[in-house]
Amino acid sequence: MEPYGIALLGCGTVGSGVAKLLLEEPERLAAQAGQPLVLRKVVVKDPGKAREVALPSNLIATDCRSVLSDPSIQLVVEVVGGTAWARTAVLDSLAAGKDVVTANKALLAQHGQEIFDAGRKHGRSIAFEASVAGGIPIIGALTQGLAANRILAIQGILNGTCNYILTEMTDQGRSYREALADAQAKGYAEADPTMDVDGTDTAHKLAILSQIAFRIAIPLNDIPRRGIAEIDKIDIGYARELGYTIKLLAEAWVDPKSTDGPIAMHVSPVMLRQTYPLALVRDAFNAIFVTGDAVGSTLYYGRGAGQMPTASAVVADIIDMAVGRAQQTFRSLKLWSSETKKTTLRSRATIPSRFYLRMHVQDRPGVLAEITRILADHQISISSIIQHEAMEGPEGSAVVPLIIMTHTALTGSFTDAVARINRSPSVLAGSVYFPVAD
Amino acid sequence: MEPYGIALLGCGTVGSGVAKLLLEEPERLAAQAGQPLVLRKVVVKDPGKAREVALPSNLIATDCRSVLSDPSIQLVVEVVGGTAWARTAVLDSLAAGKDVVTANKALLAQHGQEIFDAGRKHGRSIAFEASVAGGIPIIGALTQGLAANRILAIQGILNGTCNYILTEMTDQGRSYREALADAQAKGYAEADPTMDVDGTDTAHKLAILSQIAFRIAIPLNDIPRRGIAEIDKIDIGYARELGYTIKLLAEAWVDPKSTDGPIAMHVSPVMLRQTYPLALVRDAFNAIFVTGDAVGSTLYYGRGAGQMPTASAVVADIIDMAVGRAQQTFRSLKLWSSETKKTTLRSRATIPSRFYLRMHVQDRPGVLAEITRILADHQISISSIIQHEAMEGPEGSAVVPLIIMTHTALTGSFTDAVARINRSPSVLAGSVYFPVAD
Repeated sequence: MEPYGIALLGCGTVGSGVAKLLLEEPERLAAQAGQPLVLRKVVVKDPGKAREVALPSNLIATDCRSVLSDPSIQLVVEVVGGTAWARTAVLDSLAAGKDVVTANKALLAQHGQEIFDAGRKHGRSIAFEASVAGGIPIIGALTQGLAANRILAIQGILNGTCNYILTEMTDQGRSYREALADAQAKGYAEADPTMDVDGTDTAHKLAILSQIAFRIAIPLNDIPRRGIAEIDKIDIGYARELGYTIKLLAEAWVDPKSTDGPIAMHVSPVMLRQTYPLALVRDAFNAIFVTGDAVGSTLYYGRGAGQMPTASAVVADIIDMAVGRAQQTFRSLKLWSSETKKTTLRSRATIPSRFYLRMHVQDRPGVLAEITRILADHQISISSIIQHEAMEGPEGSAVVPLIIMTHTALTGSFTDAVARINRSPSVLAGSVYFPVAD
Repeated sequence: MEPYGIALLGCGTVGSGVAKLLLEEPERLAAQAGQPLVLRKVVVKDPGKAREVALPSNLIATDCRSVLSDPSIQLVVEVVGGTAWARTAVLDSLAAGKDVVTANKALLAQHGQEIFDAGRKHGRSIAFEASVAGGIPIIGALTQGLAANRILAIQGILNGTCNYILTEMTDQGRSYREALADAQAKGYAEADPTMDVDGTDTAHKLAILSQIAFRIAIPLNDIPRRGIAEIDKIDIGYARELGYTIKLLAEAWVDPKSTDGPIAMHVSPVMLRQTYPLALVRDAFNAIFVTGDAVGSTLYYGRGAGQMPTASAVVADIIDMAVGRAQQTFRSLKLWSSETKKTTLRSRATIPSRFYLRMHVQDRPGVLAEITRILADHQISISSIIQHEAMEGPEGSAVVPLIIMTHTALTGSFTDAVARINRSPSVLAGSVYFPVAD
């Protein structure tokens, strides 16, 4: 049978894993794909660099031209990352008549429509299973397995770096700085971890999942996001005392009674009850709840990053392309097209939530009365409260942490109440709050 | 665009759910399928029976002839169940040039090769996402999402009825009989629950998953299986005391160092550490761990039965058929074909495992020495031991339960040791053991 020719753009961690599978498992993959999968070119910046995979030297190229002009290459696999060189390479590949598999979430989240329009214009297809949650086949679940459903909610741990750091902080009592340094030493975090820890990477992935689940395109900057750098180990301690764990979640949901209405969406640290399934996801693992109107809640769990898990997803896409399924999915779903709804997100102020609030207050009579009065004025009722004794100093002079867990309240009312609490002379700067989910 | 014509065989619980989705959500499903999905016929035994969905009377038929001869029907959806009428109807449909979607695990587990051969002979395809784990897209994960992997292990809770009963026994301290009666009252168990509680239904599903994951066909009667009817609430109590939970698991795995070697497989109650993810799966939910050589461990969780979750999987298959993906998967994978390996299972005796063992022993000197001597003679070391005081009677006359948890031992050595222990005059009949997994 005619072999299926593949070019790989990039041969870093993920690219080496893809090359390894293609070069070392040809018979098994051919059986899955119904034809031999042949790696014909690997485009790298520095051909002399040591790699984790032994590449035959005749495969190595340093620019895309030899790929674009080679009629024996049907598929280009982009695992370079970034949005500059990769964007041009993907657009050029589509224009040259190649289908494209990409693992690049930033590229899709920021240039999805341009790239998918180019695919449609040139009659080519794009697949992207590896762009979200590494080896977990979540894109396939959303595009095929749950296709009969109106998706009501997505809730996921989508960044392994953040989850590793939070697990270390929770289990070892480490500070954010210490846990980040440990994650960097172990290769879970990059030298510049900004995109991971500030929630940008998670927002990229949420934008991609929302495109499939809700058919909406949200400009990345419109997704409210908080990262994990602000999380103090003090709050992790109080969370534990209250029976909760803090996780960085991506969440998007519609009102089940009005599924065409605006969508609520954010990336944020959230306090989860310790028995909630996502609270149990440790280290660099990812997990995603997807709720559909017919299927109810389903959960997908696995390694969200790393060489071979991500290569597993890339090669699944390569097989789908060789078989022809990916092209049919591309044509039938019309993702990132003019049919994509331009939607506005539901205003944060109108979203009901429970909240955890930590304040530093003067340890003197009347303070608790003042704070609870403000909350009551905003229709916020208190579910539990912790105030430990001040450690030292004469009575009345000390500052003590005061922790309040609320019942469900409107986010707008809650943030108004916090603003008013923060103006009180009895409250020091630096109140901290997180949404709570049970 | 040309509509895609569908006939439904059976309109019970699942069939009503499928009809509901097709009749009530035509626009949304057409957008997913790229063409209208039109329900043209519903074949039922009793047209007068009250149903959960309002079927236009012109759709109702009482035998398959009008379906087989209708050129506007491309797809037959079999949700009748059983292996007699359903087998004939599926074979006739394939012969008449219709593709087939089925939710029928017994049919595939017992007649998979006959049905798939018929599909190949007539150039037609078969899809079966709903046959395992209801709404969880586990068939799609194995056939597509994890296609790059050599599958090393499958471990799942695949029967919601059993899991509901075990959850009730664990949480409420109920006996098996009480929990079964409750499951029947709530509609989770059928009037005759045999196929569920004796492990047969779970074995059907394990046979299907093993066909995809390992490309092996195992005669159903060759899969060692134990059900849940023998589980005493006493053992659930001791399990809890030791930090474990009892679940009915389907397990299949290969030696990672010799993946072409024989496969270990069974359906059995297994004691799981309470923190192990599958130990946390409650009520009628299902969950499956799939471990691949590239991706590592992945987990899939959701509702394994029920009207709309199962209908979600059936309609996902209908969409895959309309789009054309299911046909490509059918052709490329060649399941239940002559390429399927006839394999022998790994001998149970050679499988290493930890074990829980409960005996009833005479409360007198020397008994413990005798039992521990027998275990030592079989190279079985003890991990923990529980013997509570006898409740009443003079010293030496009472019978007490003795619970031993072993370290890893060969199953053959362990069962030999138990046989020898049971021959001791100090040990009463009825020793009970379960494998233990951490």
